[in-house]
Amino acid sequence: MANRPRAFVREMGLRDGLQSIRTIMPTATKLDWIAREAACGVPEIEVASFVPARLLPQMADAAQVVPGARKVPELMVSVLVPNMRGAQDAIAAGAMKLNYVMSVSESHNMANVRRPVSESLADFGRIVEFCKGLDPTRRPIVAGGLATAFGCTIEGPIPEERSRELAAQLVELGADEIIVADTVGYGNPAAVRRIFAGVLAEAGELPVAAHFHDTRGVGLANVVAALDQGIVRFDASLGGLGGCPYAPGASGNIVMEDLVFLLETMGYATGVDLTKLIEVRKVVQASLADEQKQFHGALSQAGLPKNYAHV
Amino acid sequence: MANRPRAFVREMGLRDGLQSIRTIMPTATKLDWIAREAACGVPEIEVASFVPARLLPQMADAAQVVPGARKVPELMVSVLVPNMRGAQDAIAAGAMKLNYVMSVSESHNMANVRRPVSESLADFGRIVEFCKGLDPTRRPIVAGGLATAFGCTIEGPIPEERSRELAAQLVELGADEIIVADTVGYGNPAAVRRIFAGVLAEAGELPVAAHFHDTRGVGLANVVAALDQGIVRFDASLGGLGGCPYAPGASGNIVMEDLVFLLETMGYATGVDLTKLIEVRKVVQASLADEQKQFHGALSQAGLPKNYAHV
Repeated sequence: MANRPRAFVREMGLRDGLQSIRTIMPTATKLDWIAREAACGVPEIEVASFVPARLLPQMADAAQVVPGARKVPELMVSVLVPNMRGAQDAIAAGAMKLNYVMSVSESHNMANVRRPVSESLADFGRIVEFCKGLDPTRRPIVAGGLATAFGCTIEGPIPEERSRELAAQLVELGADEIIVADTVGYGNPAAVRRIFAGVLAEAGELPVAAHFHDTRGVGLANVVAALDQGIVRFDASLGGLGGCPYAPGASGNIVMEDLVFLLETMGYATGVDLTKLIEVRKVVQASLADEQKQFHGALSQAGLPKNYAHV
Repeated sequence: MANRPRAFVREMGLRDGLQSIRTIMPTATKLDWIAREAACGVPEIEVASFVPARLLPQMADAAQVVPGARKVPELMVSVLVPNMRGAQDAIAAGAMKLNYVMSVSESHNMANVRRPVSESLADFGRIVEFCKGLDPTRRPIVAGGLATAFGCTIEGPIPEERSRELAAQLVELGADEIIVADTVGYGNPAAVRRIFAGVLAEAGELPVAAHFHDTRGVGLANVVAALDQGIVRFDASLGGLGGCPYAPGASGNIVMEDLVFLLETMGYATGVDLTKLIEVRKVVQASLADEQKQFHGALSQAGLPKNYAHV
């Protein structure tokens, strides 16, 4: 098993999950979740979003969550930032990685961050420059995220070449990583292959990650297509927490534990102890008593197969 | 769109689905389901199982369902048969296709049909010979199904070469089609590629079909892997009806409407009107009032994407 290819899973539940539910999780509960999941071997957790608290009260404690998460050994503590102000606050809190978000869809970008794509790009460039001026010990990794790459609820499908064009611009502006996101579940494996092929052609040696939602059930199918292109970095959330506010009951992020199962059984080494991870899901689910319908996933129902021994 | 590759979906809910729930669906309701789903363009429906009624009371009306289904225009009416007796009864009822089931797992075959794999193989050969002796107008297609190809709850994983060996024997005995089944959700995309490559090497020009369960969430991911191997025939059930009796709440067959969505968005022509199919799911789900927890699937929750126009 020593020569298995490595795959990297990144937990989104504390940001993409919690921001989509009504319950506000206390800071201490968030930090407990982070510590438990990191102890399973999950190498990176997006712990918060640096947006105004009036917009997302669930994220009001971002500046407390980040330093708490930084105490967890060997964890890459990442955060979402939509603009320079968020980036500066995140850096001040000690974030190790900034996942900058902009939408491929013009309409979605306007709705989400209230400015055209061109302004989001320019702001990304300014954030990269700002980070370059920092002391290397405080300088975060800056990832450029392309939301709604496969389509959005406002515009429907998005021309696929737009993802490649914007990825090229993010690379040009100095991104350390590119994240391609199917924010609302418009992707399919054929489109995944085409879009990631385009983005990879622009990214060169930079890491490229996939952020899939399971809104229409094909999230893990999209993972298989991305793996075919050589993608080995995947966002997911424990229990699939993170439904779409426009589709009550619909599933959200791909399910972390099911993703780990998929990757491990396909021969990838995730470094994650799946048995322990399933226990952490139970703890997190129990901590959100009023949100039981937001939890999805097959493995938590069916259990591991007999003689499962990939970890 | 005229040149899209064709994919074939086959409905299993009336057999694999109904046999796993407590409610016994009346014959007229079954025939209504069959007529409605066939009207959506689903080309093949496994309408019943020819097993003793004392073992599966839900299938006691098999000899009435088959002639009823035969009245539906252009529908391939298939049935499951476990032995010669079942095959003869099915043919007498007018079945157009026999899906003969045996397990790759010796223990599972013994548990399921109470005899060793070698006896199941011999019986398959007798059924093929019996069919050859029939008048061509009454002669059914005979498919050889390999259940538990990826593992089972008794033995755990099954050596992958066994599927290829047994497929070779089914071909030798005169099968018209081979069906490889992940009966209890032990498959993964990497194993799917290996096992189907082996079976295809033995099948030559014969059609090879995939029967996946979504027990651990990777059913549609397995479909993508099978498509990569050239497989274009897939079993599924409306709403994923057909849970595993050993895992309450676990999902069963892959979800027909999600499968059609996957195939159509990937560019395959299924011939199925997905909008109508989602309506049929509602009718079927409403007809099984006490079994609401047995229905799964993402598309029925999230709806089709904006500007979806693949059908």
